[in-house]
Amino acid sequence: MSQPTTFGAREDQESIDESAVFCPKFDADGLLAAVAVDARTREPLMLAWMNEESLRRTLDTGEAVYFSRSRQELWHKGATSGHTQKVRSIRTDCDQDAVILYVDQETGACHTGRRSCFYREVTPGDPATLTFVDDGKTFDPEKVYGGKG
Amino acid sequence: MSQPTTFGAREDQESIDESAVFCPKFDADGLLAAVAVDARTREPLMLAWMNEESLRRTLDTGEAVYFSRSRQELWHKGATSGHTQKVRSIRTDCDQDAVILYVDQETGACHTGRRSCFYREVTPGDPATLTFVDDGKTFDPEKVYGGKG
Repeated sequence: MSQPTTFGAREDQESIDESAVFCPKFDADGLLAAVAVDARTREPLMLAWMNEESLRRTLDTGEAVYFSRSRQELWHKGATSGHTQKVRSIRTDCDQDAVILYVDQETGACHTGRRSCFYREVTPGDPATLTFVDDGKTFDPEKVYGGKG
Repeated sequence: MSQPTTFGAREDQESIDESAVFCPKFDADGLLAAVAVDARTREPLMLAWMNEESLRRTLDTGEAVYFSRSRQELWHKGATSGHTQKVRSIRTDCDQDAVILYVDQETGACHTGRRSCFYREVTPGDPATLTFVDDGKTFDPEKVYGGKG
């Protein structure tokens, strides 16, 4: 058995910013924000949440495991759809309360079938209206999530 | 006087996912996550938070205005340092509870002086340890934030 993954203790701001100790900060709900970015194209794919256990499992398994705020449970991305994210590298920010996962995304990241969840852009001069910048489906969500058989 | 910027009403999931109505969702604290990405290099620069007013001001002024969770106030990025972010475009995700800002970043985004806040990577096989992937300073934080004179 290998050692369980543990994180460092958070000390003063200078050490959090400038040391090589990974000491992630989880918010009052026990979560931090995680952005998945396509490791090849650098396209942002999705933004989700991780609790300590999901970050640990991501590090241990090499596949993205988030925490679903709506279902309040661990969420191994792609476990039902097959659209897993193989994690190539992980970065954290200065205060270590957010991470970026550079991933190889199988098929598409978005439950709508698109490659990225960020498929709409705010329209310049008309901020109440969105413009679709990607309307291509990588899979049929009905087939993947829709039925029982 | 121009009309104040308003957002759409959130209806059912299908309409939130698939319509062209911008209806951002703010969490229980009134916030959504905002990722600033360099419009030219596509490098993620920082992750911060916006309340409704900061999103509105960002749209109205064309410069990134966040909400500081620690200071509990609007935060016009670069107002003191001069390191503003000119917003080139904004994308939202399927459920509209996160945004990406593609920005022209003046000098550096990070308070440590670096271009991006994501300057450290989790070390493969040693997840308690970070590796610096960018240690170049774009400015001297002591000079910008340090003194009164």
